[in-house]
Amino acid sequence: MAEQRIPRATAKRLPIYYRYLNILLDADKTRVSSTELSEAVKVDSATIRRDFSYFGALGKRGYGYDVPKLIEFFKKILNQDQLTNVALVGVGNLGHALLNFNFHQNSNVRISAAFDVNDNIINTVQSGVPIYPLTEMEQQLQEQQIAIAIVTVPEDTAQEVTDQLVKAGVRGILNFTPRRLSVPENVRVQNVDLTNELQTLIYFIDHYGDLVNTTRAGQN
Amino acid sequence: MAEQRIPRATAKRLPIYYRYLNILLDADKTRVSSTELSEAVKVDSATIRRDFSYFGALGKRGYGYDVPKLIEFFKKILNQDQLTNVALVGVGNLGHALLNFNFHQNSNVRISAAFDVNDNIINTVQSGVPIYPLTEMEQQLQEQQIAIAIVTVPEDTAQEVTDQLVKAGVRGILNFTPRRLSVPENVRVQNVDLTNELQTLIYFIDHYGDLVNTTRAGQN
Repeated sequence: MAEQRIPRATAKRLPIYYRYLNILLDADKTRVSSTELSEAVKVDSATIRRDFSYFGALGKRGYGYDVPKLIEFFKKILNQDQLTNVALVGVGNLGHALLNFNFHQNSNVRISAAFDVNDNIINTVQSGVPIYPLTEMEQQLQEQQIAIAIVTVPEDTAQEVTDQLVKAGVRGILNFTPRRLSVPENVRVQNVDLTNELQTLIYFIDHYGDLVNTTRAGQN
Repeated sequence: MAEQRIPRATAKRLPIYYRYLNILLDADKTRVSSTELSEAVKVDSATIRRDFSYFGALGKRGYGYDVPKLIEFFKKILNQDQLTNVALVGVGNLGHALLNFNFHQNSNVRISAAFDVNDNIINTVQSGVPIYPLTEMEQQLQEQQIAIAIVTVPEDTAQEVTDQLVKAGVRGILNFTPRRLSVPENVRVQNVDLTNELQTLIYFIDHYGDLVNTTRAGQN
């Protein structure tokens, strides 16, 4: 908590740095220049240096960055030395795909419980994850001390499910529904709106012609 | 092209405004204040006014915004008066979910062709979409004049597929793989990195305590 607050854009890039540094280490590379790092992660090197500066000066001029040190550093920052269990609410097509999605291969995050209203899958195990009835959600989340939930329910039930999640003590919601959710101040919602992503992409291509990449450093 | 370039953050909010305005119109509301709009879409009203200002003054003091006019306006901006066909490359779990995902309900975007290497699904129709072999991708994309592709292939083939897409004339890629793709200047990549989204959410909750929403206006 003592550390300086970093911008959201920087926070979003930390997992990308972390993943690439692990690839380097697997290839027995123990140092990397900011130029190499920049080329690999598609973030310009000035941005990388600024991002790293939030955590103190980590690189040395003419040497670059020490890979194992950086990894240790990011591991702590990203809480990768402990497993984070998350819940999935709504096991439809997208929910099923997320159960199969290999979050754990690239990170220390795991879907450990899922919830649905469909009697055909309730009380079964799907892709290694137990499916509970929605009516048991509050109890299970509290018992399992899960603080983060992925929401992939139909749009018209999204707010109701969110209210239940908040009541159960959830602090972070990854929202795949197009609904904008209302939550208390101390709960964070991150929206992954797939229609929106496509529309934004189309907008840029239609309106920017060959200049689509003027914001390329961020890529996002 | 004559119009002013708008920030990426603004471009990302346009589809959200557009969707909510359509909900209002369906409910026979013909005007809306920036406060109401703000509450519904979870974007602060100063940001809304600034976003709208990029397109000229669209609201009137004490009256608010004219809903049908705004919709007409956004429809053109977002190219919603014509259907945009997109391709899907990689019909695994996530690809299947996206084929079933109802992009078309909320937007004028439709997955019209999909590509894979799996003989069991090649030359079949899945969720109404024909699946072609990857070897026919360039030809099909050119024939169907598809400029946008969603990439959900395994990480280690992502760059190869991207090179083929670029060769076939694709201008925009929605990248669901964790790989950062290399593309020419005139091609735009938008990354949807689900592991990254979860890690960022965890980071904010671990490090910001009750202040998780200091950047709430953006919500993303």
